[in-house]
Amino acid sequence: MPLLTRITGPRDLDRLSLEQLDQLAGEIRTFLVDAVSKTGGHLGPNLGVVELTIALHRVFESPQDKILFDTGHQSYVHKLLTGRQDFSRLKMKGGLSGYPSQAESEHDVIENSHASTVLGWADGIAKANELRRTDDHVVAVIGDGALTGGMAWEALNNIAAAKDRPLVIVVNDNERSYAPTIGGLANHLATLRTTDGYERFLARGKDLLERTPVVGKPLYETLHGAKKGLKDFIAPQGMFEDLGLKYVGPIDGHDIEALESALIRAKRFGGPVIVHCLTEKGRGYRPALEDEADRFHGIGPIHPDTGLPIKAAGADWTSVFGDEMLKLGQEREDIVAITAAMLQPVGLEKFAKAFPDRVYDVGIAEQHGAVSAAGLATGGLHPVFAVYATFLNRAFDQVLMDVALHKCGVTFVLDRAGVTGTDGASHNGMWDMSLLQVVPGIRIAAPRDADQVRAQLREAVQVEDAPTVVRYSKGAVGPAVEAVGTVGGMDVLREPGSDRPDVLLVSVGALAPMCLEIADLLDKQGITTTVVDPRWVKPVDEAMAPLAERHRVVVTVEDNSRVGGVGSSIAQALRDAGVDVPLRDFGIPPRFLDHASRKEVMAEIGLTAPDIARQVTGLVSKLDGRREHSVAEEMEPARD
Amino acid sequence: MPLLTRITGPRDLDRLSLEQLDQLAGEIRTFLVDAVSKTGGHLGPNLGVVELTIALHRVFESPQDKILFDTGHQSYVHKLLTGRQDFSRLKMKGGLSGYPSQAESEHDVIENSHASTVLGWADGIAKANELRRTDDHVVAVIGDGALTGGMAWEALNNIAAAKDRPLVIVVNDNERSYAPTIGGLANHLATLRTTDGYERFLARGKDLLERTPVVGKPLYETLHGAKKGLKDFIAPQGMFEDLGLKYVGPIDGHDIEALESALIRAKRFGGPVIVHCLTEKGRGYRPALEDEADRFHGIGPIHPDTGLPIKAAGADWTSVFGDEMLKLGQEREDIVAITAAMLQPVGLEKFAKAFPDRVYDVGIAEQHGAVSAAGLATGGLHPVFAVYATFLNRAFDQVLMDVALHKCGVTFVLDRAGVTGTDGASHNGMWDMSLLQVVPGIRIAAPRDADQVRAQLREAVQVEDAPTVVRYSKGAVGPAVEAVGTVGGMDVLREPGSDRPDVLLVSVGALAPMCLEIADLLDKQGITTTVVDPRWVKPVDEAMAPLAERHRVVVTVEDNSRVGGVGSSIAQALRDAGVDVPLRDFGIPPRFLDHASRKEVMAEIGLTAPDIARQVTGLVSKLDGRREHSVAEEMEPARD
Repeated sequence: MPLLTRITGPRDLDRLSLEQLDQLAGEIRTFLVDAVSKTGGHLGPNLGVVELTIALHRVFESPQDKILFDTGHQSYVHKLLTGRQDFSRLKMKGGLSGYPSQAESEHDVIENSHASTVLGWADGIAKANELRRTDDHVVAVIGDGALTGGMAWEALNNIAAAKDRPLVIVVNDNERSYAPTIGGLANHLATLRTTDGYERFLARGKDLLERTPVVGKPLYETLHGAKKGLKDFIAPQGMFEDLGLKYVGPIDGHDIEALESALIRAKRFGGPVIVHCLTEKGRGYRPALEDEADRFHGIGPIHPDTGLPIKAAGADWTSVFGDEMLKLGQEREDIVAITAAMLQPVGLEKFAKAFPDRVYDVGIAEQHGAVSAAGLATGGLHPVFAVYATFLNRAFDQVLMDVALHKCGVTFVLDRAGVTGTDGASHNGMWDMSLLQVVPGIRIAAPRDADQVRAQLREAVQVEDAPTVVRYSKGAVGPAVEAVGTVGGMDVLREPGSDRPDVLLVSVGALAPMCLEIADLLDKQGITTTVVDPRWVKPVDEAMAPLAERHRVVVTVEDNSRVGGVGSSIAQALRDAGVDVPLRDFGIPPRFLDHASRKEVMAEIGLTAPDIARQVTGLVSKLDGRREHSVAEEMEPARD
Repeated sequence: MPLLTRITGPRDLDRLSLEQLDQLAGEIRTFLVDAVSKTGGHLGPNLGVVELTIALHRVFESPQDKILFDTGHQSYVHKLLTGRQDFSRLKMKGGLSGYPSQAESEHDVIENSHASTVLGWADGIAKANELRRTDDHVVAVIGDGALTGGMAWEALNNIAAAKDRPLVIVVNDNERSYAPTIGGLANHLATLRTTDGYERFLARGKDLLERTPVVGKPLYETLHGAKKGLKDFIAPQGMFEDLGLKYVGPIDGHDIEALESALIRAKRFGGPVIVHCLTEKGRGYRPALEDEADRFHGIGPIHPDTGLPIKAAGADWTSVFGDEMLKLGQEREDIVAITAAMLQPVGLEKFAKAFPDRVYDVGIAEQHGAVSAAGLATGGLHPVFAVYATFLNRAFDQVLMDVALHKCGVTFVLDRAGVTGTDGASHNGMWDMSLLQVVPGIRIAAPRDADQVRAQLREAVQVEDAPTVVRYSKGAVGPAVEAVGTVGGMDVLREPGSDRPDVLLVSVGALAPMCLEIADLLDKQGITTTVVDPRWVKPVDEAMAPLAERHRVVVTVEDNSRVGGVGSSIAQALRDAGVDVPLRDFGIPPRFLDHASRKEVMAEIGLTAPDIARQVTGLVSKLDGRREHSVAEEMEPARD
């Protein structure tokens, strides 16, 4: 890599010839395939933006100028050009983040990997530039898929309103986000892709018009002379120009010279401008290009030549859901599925193949997923909206005010709930069981194993007068955890072996094996423990308070933010029942988590069996001491 | 009202002549001005949609066909035509809701009064109609302002994707939502408003082209003959057609015949179609038409002739904020303001007049308000986003993942927090202190009076590395409540008059006077009480746990959902500190609240001083009993 290794910062690009830049692009592709096939990561998107990123850093002066990436998983090339070429620990603890990271570099801004935010950020920064009267530029790179998100629209509407406020929007159009982009916008982009606006009108019109003689000169020339006037009211530059945004494009996103020329024009324009670039996801890497299912969007370690995964994946939560969903679809005609541009990642592929008319890909548009689900339910169907837990945050108001307020039977299936790890702060699904607690009437299931996913999904789709939620973790599903009994609607996973047990341990979802391990550890300390899995964590089972009252302390363990989560909810239910047994709630602390493996993150936040067992042991000892103290104190009331 | 009183349902409209329909429209306007001036309500929007609603009910057959209203405050005419003509208790307990209500009528669907939802609902219902193979129609009425919301975009993109799925969108374009609609879309609508797409091209082009002779016949005719072919690639129908939506319009929204004709065409079209109607907000009512500040959007009781309020408003929370914001603007150049299409209702008018360049109206686009605030903060400014508490729910993900994750100094000022009452379930601001609890690093202030609004706003804008929130109630601000001391950063509002007090009463925000009343009531029962106002409810003050430990019971009172609110948060802080003093948390129960006055709602949910005092008295008595019991039990450990 003779050129790449000499790039220590964006200005090192300035001295390279066009030929050398093409060579650099080739080196970067080789580097990416080699590095990402070892560590896993987002391969396809980055292969698509090699030339574009080079051109951006040639034309704009980062970090004075802000180069902003939407979603952020396509920032690998940007990292390589801004002094970060050690990809050996990509997405691992202590290694490079898979997204932009302010801690890594002054060239990075947006760390949030949720889509469609970049235009809003750019609008804010452009407004600040204007007020601060600087000549700094701001350029936002957004995929065509992310344009389907409502935030993008809100931002475009605002950006277009200020004709003199410079802001460059680069639409990185590869015709797909995770999957082919759908909807009216996609069709419109397709039109633009094969069109050149007014120029195309002239070209296509030329034939017709040249055959229509006008006195003196051909009609074509007559019209061409009136170009400006006509353009004002007939040139079909499309919806962007309708909104008042200057449109430049389409540009070949792999032609550095063309890209630079377009970006320089856009930079000089002095107002909001869209540069429409056509790129090829997976460019230069045959396995990615030939894969219709877009499996190279984000990958685990693969063999670099074949693109085949190095270790085969076992049964995972997602596929358990996907298989059961297919069965449900066969059994019930009223069940329909919704995805927000992630049909395959959320496990709906089989359902979609069997029932193509009953699956709706709404684009990167979680709000629409939820609100249209309310409409579908009102129309007599039962929608199942499968979505990553972290992305449902986008639709909180719609879950509350559209689905729940109207008592619609909609099932939300939250994949990747809890600590997911390597994708960093914004991919952890650690908020859902807190947020959704406040939604009146909602029922939340946290299945502990594959059997429970199947069973609870079936219970969920039976509910027709309220929203239901089924949430589960990322990755491989653990072994089955059998119940040894039930209390109310709850499964008892372990009996305490004592009539007056010390600890009621409430295990939430996938943490059941860990909770059983905690109970074993407590056992060794002579602390007797009941382990119960509520299955449905909301509403709190009516049997919970009486059960808690039979114990000396209640301990809850959940893979969710401690704040307002299941533990808090159970604590409140106990208070309401007048059961003042001390409770300790273990969960994810209220802070953003750095990227690392799930196991490393869990260890770091103390969500491990030994950590929790140690703390519970301490608490029980303290209660033992306090009981003695309390008795002594109460026996001598006159002492104070 | 000879005609109106005979309308018992929409089909009664069928037998009326066009002349009679116009007469009916007049009667409805008279009715509305008369009725709404007595009760208060949304006057302007309803006066604007009289003819439109009549035409909708003539052309579509509700309730088989679903007529859906966005935001819902323009459904009064719809109510009058569907058997609801008793407006005497509009928005009052037991009277008609100010929004559609499924409990009131089978003709009503969407109760959520948050904007921009209707297209998503319509998309869902249209999909259900398609799967169920019915010929039922769905028609969605949306204002031009609501089109600026991201949800509208997400829905349009989906609706446009299905060319054969019937769905009629009526854009009720009055060029303003609460305030004049802004942004690129507004400009585009303005163009459409004075344009008739291809027809206009022909008309405008005609002059030019007729002056250009072609062999045989005028150029105009030549082109006109080629109309269809040309239209395919040059007709500038605008962005809606770019997206693939059939566009009909603009239509005079006060011409029933024209409206019916357009709606019939749209109904027969067999795919998604937009009918663009131009209406006049406040039509037929001079005080509304002449009022630029749009004060007749929603009103209290007024004198029907003059439009002047019957009782003058006293100092309210909003104006206290607005005045202080103006001062802050004068003191600090870096402070900028953001509103989501509600400049006047949130109190930013004075700031906007003084600093027009430093206020950003983003449209009905709370997501963009929050994310662009992150950009503004990154650009070195301190944005203050003033928004109704209930509407911030729309931007939860942006507060979390854009503002908080990036440690941006952004202040959110939440107006109308807590129980607001008469606007019903979706206007209560009862979720904010639960939702925002989960946001790492955020600081939440709940000022108890006008002085505290001013003081805490100033404290909030000092924080530059985290989001801050200042939340207050709707309406008149109560008298000043002076602190009698401090503990940590908290204000003590009442000392207990005892060295070993019984109750620590934690008062949140505007409920301070009620909490002092509770303490007085407890006093009469011999229960000694400390009343403390934490001022900043998040993070929980470090002095809280030691203070709680000196009491026998902790009681929290908040004007927010009980679930995951301040009480839950304090309970968790006490648990974490190992302080197991019993706690009882009072707040809004986790259900949707019917419309009624704030006072009536508070009484219904038991959030009154006597109710709470009674319960606390019961709890203390129980503790007294338990203490004796506990002592007895502990003295005889061998008994079991």
